[in-house]
Amino acid sequence: MKPVVVTNTPRIDQSIVGQLAELGTATAHEAMGRVGLMKPYMRPIWPGAQVAGSALTVLAQPGDNWMIHVAIEQCRPGDILVVAVTADNTDGMFGDLLATSLKARGGIGLVIDAGVRDIKTLAEMGFPAWSRAVSAKGTVKATLGSVNVPVVCAGALVQPGDVIVADDDGVVVVPRRDAEAVAVAGEARVTNEGAKREALASGVLGLDLYKMREPLAKAGLVYVDYKDED
Amino acid sequence: MKPVVVTNTPRIDQSIVGQLAELGTATAHEAMGRVGLMKPYMRPIWPGAQVAGSALTVLAQPGDNWMIHVAIEQCRPGDILVVAVTADNTDGMFGDLLATSLKARGGIGLVIDAGVRDIKTLAEMGFPAWSRAVSAKGTVKATLGSVNVPVVCAGALVQPGDVIVADDDGVVVVPRRDAEAVAVAGEARVTNEGAKREALASGVLGLDLYKMREPLAKAGLVYVDYKDED
Amino acid sequence: MKPVVVTNTPRIDQSIVGQLAELGTATAHEAMGRVGLMKPYMRPIWPGAQVAGSALTVLAQPGDNWMIHVAIEQCRPGDILVVAVTADNTDGMFGDLLATSLKARGGIGLVIDAGVRDIKTLAEMGFPAWSRAVSAKGTVKATLGSVNVPVVCAGALVQPGDVIVADDDGVVVVPRRDAEAVAVAGEARVTNEGAKREALASGVLGLDLYKMREPLAKAGLVYVDYKDED
Amino acid sequence: MKPVVVTNTPRIDQSIVGQLAELGTATAHEAMGRVGLMKPYMRPIWPGAQVAGSALTVLAQPGDNWMIHVAIEQCRPGDILVVAVTADNTDGMFGDLLATSLKARGGIGLVIDAGVRDIKTLAEMGFPAWSRAVSAKGTVKATLGSVNVPVVCAGALVQPGDVIVADDDGVVVVPRRDAEAVAVAGEARVTNEGAKREALASGVLGLDLYKMREPLAKAGLVYVDYKDED
Amino acid sequence: MKPVVVTNTPRIDQSIVGQLAELGTATAHEAMGRVGLMKPYMRPIWPGAQVAGSALTVLAQPGDNWMIHVAIEQCRPGDILVVAVTADNTDGMFGDLLATSLKARGGIGLVIDAGVRDIKTLAEMGFPAWSRAVSAKGTVKATLGSVNVPVVCAGALVQPGDVIVADDDGVVVVPRRDAEAVAVAGEARVTNEGAKREALASGVLGLDLYKMREPLAKAGLVYVDYKDED
Amino acid sequence: MKPVVVTNTPRIDQSIVGQLAELGTATAHEAMGRVGLMKPYMRPIWPGAQVAGSALTVLAQPGDNWMIHVAIEQCRPGDILVVAVTADNTDGMFGDLLATSLKARGGIGLVIDAGVRDIKTLAEMGFPAWSRAVSAKGTVKATLGSVNVPVVCAGALVQPGDVIVADDDGVVVVPRRDAEAVAVAGEARVTNEGAKREALASGVLGLDLYKMREPLAKAGLVYVDYKDED
Repeated sequence: MKPVVVTNTPRIDQSIVGQLAELGTATAHEAMGRVGLMKPYMRPIWPGAQVAGSALTVLAQPGDNWMIHVAIEQCRPGDILVVAVTADNTDGMFGDLLATSLKARGGIGLVIDAGVRDIKTLAEMGFPAWSRAVSAKGTVKATLGSVNVPVVCAGALVQPGDVIVADDDGVVVVPRRDAEAVAVAGEARVTNEGAKREALASGVLGLDLYKMREPLAKAGLVYVDYKDED
Repeated sequence: MKPVVVTNTPRIDQSIVGQLAELGTATAHEAMGRVGLMKPYMRPIWPGAQVAGSALTVLAQPGDNWMIHVAIEQCRPGDILVVAVTADNTDGMFGDLLATSLKARGGIGLVIDAGVRDIKTLAEMGFPAWSRAVSAKGTVKATLGSVNVPVVCAGALVQPGDVIVADDDGVVVVPRRDAEAVAVAGEARVTNEGAKREALASGVLGLDLYKMREPLAKAGLVYVDYKDED
Repeated sequence: MKPVVVTNTPRIDQSIVGQLAELGTATAHEAMGRVGLMKPYMRPIWPGAQVAGSALTVLAQPGDNWMIHVAIEQCRPGDILVVAVTADNTDGMFGDLLATSLKARGGIGLVIDAGVRDIKTLAEMGFPAWSRAVSAKGTVKATLGSVNVPVVCAGALVQPGDVIVADDDGVVVVPRRDAEAVAVAGEARVTNEGAKREALASGVLGLDLYKMREPLAKAGLVYVDYKDED
Repeated sequence: MKPVVVTNTPRIDQSIVGQLAELGTATAHEAMGRVGLMKPYMRPIWPGAQVAGSALTVLAQPGDNWMIHVAIEQCRPGDILVVAVTADNTDGMFGDLLATSLKARGGIGLVIDAGVRDIKTLAEMGFPAWSRAVSAKGTVKATLGSVNVPVVCAGALVQPGDVIVADDDGVVVVPRRDAEAVAVAGEARVTNEGAKREALASGVLGLDLYKMREPLAKAGLVYVDYKDED
Repeated sequence: MKPVVVTNTPRIDQSIVGQLAELGTATAHEAMGRVGLMKPYMRPIWPGAQVAGSALTVLAQPGDNWMIHVAIEQCRPGDILVVAVTADNTDGMFGDLLATSLKARGGIGLVIDAGVRDIKTLAEMGFPAWSRAVSAKGTVKATLGSVNVPVVCAGALVQPGDVIVADDDGVVVVPRRDAEAVAVAGEARVTNEGAKREALASGVLGLDLYKMREPLAKAGLVYVDYKDED
Repeated sequence: MKPVVVTNTPRIDQSIVGQLAELGTATAHEAMGRVGLMKPYMRPIWPGAQVAGSALTVLAQPGDNWMIHVAIEQCRPGDILVVAVTADNTDGMFGDLLATSLKARGGIGLVIDAGVRDIKTLAEMGFPAWSRAVSAKGTVKATLGSVNVPVVCAGALVQPGDVIVADDDGVVVVPRRDAEAVAVAGEARVTNEGAKREALASGVLGLDLYKMREPLAKAGLVYVDYKDED
């Protein structure tokens, strides 16, 4: 694969992105049919952030953040930088200077399958980031990679322009052309969950709410009183 | 092993459970003779909670939370739900709807050798949970498991009705019939530690407080001045 | 290797230590030429602490904290206790009693390639600690180790008297005789970064600020418009 | 828990043990209803061994093999030594001298949730062992544990006298009182599998052999020709 | 994503596949520009196999091998079955019965991001498999997945019909439309390496063979005699 | 730290190295007082090799094998190449071409805290290597490191010229100036072990051979008959 920067990649309407941000990771993931989730080792560097944005993808070498500088020039307002690395790595490839630069271009967050540093400053800046590690280890600028090519990041395929949804529960990738349908399906789930939550809070059992008793019995579930066990 | 739900399992007196909650994990574990601790990968989803409760056990399949719904019906006030899985798994098998339902039945917390989701909402609800992972990944409801059978959860054997003690230091399992003795032994430790803490704070050395100088010398410990090293 | 306690090991001037504390881990690590960093699994037990101090080293057996008691007697004001273990271990080898004792001797923090317990109390005490794990598991006092010998802790060599710099980004070891030079080089970096941050915040690209366009082109980087890809 | 050695624990008939050895781990595990399996990190130190034996259990401290010496005195012909450790550990707690001693007492193998050493010699002796690690790291003899108490080893509960079945696929624990039933159920599976294997080898599909087409269709599986995908 | 089986997916010419098999993983990976490699945790269950084949892809649920039965019907001679799972899992989802069935359809190997069992029998059959784990744990047949859709397996994107190259060094994925070019580039590398090997074996240094001395000096490498170090 | 190549580092007498090779890792490690062992994740790429040699050390960047070429020029007959990396990495930084070159200079083996490739060819060449991973992933030649400086490799400090002892049990580092004493102490252990092995094989218990009964009783060990347990 030749090192390449793809320019003018498509993004979708920000209003759909906004709807996905409100859904959050778990609901968006359910609405997609339970695919597209990054591995659970991807954790936020500070709690409470919930964002969605178009993916600006980077394929970098382990311990080398040269291509992140290249990518920032391609950033448009609302983008989330998604960095994949060609081999498992935890180096601190992104810190407060890069965040300052990305923010200046309208970037709203970072998802990186490697390490982040300056996390106290990033938290003070309110800049959200999800990473596999925190590490003070700096990086070199020596070898090319690519920008805005399809990448596998933390076990999930990300195409440039896909929508990234991220919160305390993790990171999910919504393919660009599915984004609108997922937003609609997700809204329906939210409405539906409200009614369920109320029922469950009032003491109704899931067994009854979801009509599980018959399938459980059919599958062979047996109830035994503790006193009758041998 | 046939899938089974054992009903009417015994619990112990809440006053003993309350005493164990006050001791916390580290002291309860010491008072038991340093056994019964779950692996340290079990971490709280939010800091500061300290609870104890009777174990309501579940043995589930990886990525399948059907039996958690079944278990909630068996919940009694003060219970802690303990979920073991038949293979290593990090899926988000428990979220805010299940927490709402469990709370409505009097359940006070969750210990799960898998993943949890909706952690922001769980924190807002003040619902404490200890898990091996956080993951937005939802689950199926397809295969039976068991409720209130002995399980191995995060490396520790848990019998239904055993007392779970959990705080920021981790999770310990106190066998039901040892609970009273552990509570008594723990109280004694707490009293004893108060005196030690005061002595140490005043500058007394552990070497003197615990009379270690003689056994150290007997074991062969040698002191050398830095200037005299070759 | 015979078990030994080395006494009267050298420390450097506290004013240099103070300068290193202000730099923080990432800057100190860069100023050293990107060496001396502990593995990123070393995490603070509570966020926000930033310290530097002279290393008081301990080589302990897994699950045995006898030598920590021995080490505390050797503590001088401003020291940081650095505990290495002869095999991978996560037991809670250090808790609030040891912290109380260390503080009484002037110790200001802990770095341990094992587990810590009583973390809620340690946070309330404002006592900073970096560890590979949190675990309620207590330890025995049965086998000798050494104090103030060179140790490998979390992948980094630590000589007694080296300066430990630790914050939310991790832990770095500055060799005693390099400490002054690192402090000077670090200050220069900080000054330099201020100017860069301002430029980047105003929208100047790293590509231009660091003059990367020519080397990138020379290395073969190619730009392709999304519409022109096949 | 007080340190204790339980003597004269029961074993079951060697003819049943022999039947279980012939079944191997995977078949025995299926015949039990898919429970009792140790974690897959337990690997044989040399390939090809397939054994079954009565569990002689040890609970040891990390890095301390004192109790293994104590256990060997309790060994009876056909026993397999099962060593659990109170905290995760990879030290080489068992080597060729212990194997020589165990063999002299009739012991036929080792299952240890820690490390083994002298593995070249153990292979030459034809002594089978399953462990979480190989490590040259020797151990101390300083702290008591217990022999022939229930232990959790690599995630599985083992009672003294349970039958251990181990081969290249891993290690399974058959509770003593279920052993005969498992042997019978396992034999039935083996017979049954022979017929299946023949059918599959002749080109019959599992879809037809197991009558899966109808349930798959009912569950909603759809077939699409590659040319008709959008 | 709806569960789907895509039929009649394209494969490429077997002669190109054969060339890639001869290259092996490392050379094919270099010839592609160092992309497409699965994570190094993918290991062969027996050493020495070296194969290439067209990918028949499966997306399965953790601990559920229903879709593998479905996939085997789609197998054509020379195919390699590639199984991805929706969450990290080590269950033994594939054993000797499935291998018998796959072989009967012309399948030549397995790549699975989960566990394999019956590995002794698979080795005796000469059936090659690369997996993340070996585990006797059997699986259920309860939930749908998909066959011949794009999957992410062990960190690499696999499209149905891509060429899998696997040997003792690991597994690489060659996109179908790049396969011929990679075969050609790989042959050139092999020829080139022969000459290099001869030179190096005769004592010529890589420093001279690859003309590294000048760039090393330019990059600032310094030689110091041991006696002249301070 | 400036990139540097230290030349003419000292080695010790080959006769002592030969003695250490015969002892093997476990005995050498015991003879040193149980220090200096690399982490147990360091495994041989093929079983059965047992070597010792003088350490030729390399500090490399992750995924960059430039300095290995530099190091080979410094190789002297009997040396073992020891490669440490500045961050955790599993790339295949060493393959059959480098092995050919190292062998031509008299190098006899490799210890690398990263990945190796071409392992089938290396086995055919009889070239022994211990590594943390096997990976086909190739590397760049872009950034300097150092040769023959002290490094931390897999958790152990290695000075150039230290003796590396490696076999199926792992890798131990014997400091150059301790090598002779370790060789002598090791021989004594071997002689001593012969007598012990004979006694144990004849059925003498370790309890008696090592006179453990009294210290066990003193430490509080209690024997209980199975029938008398409650």
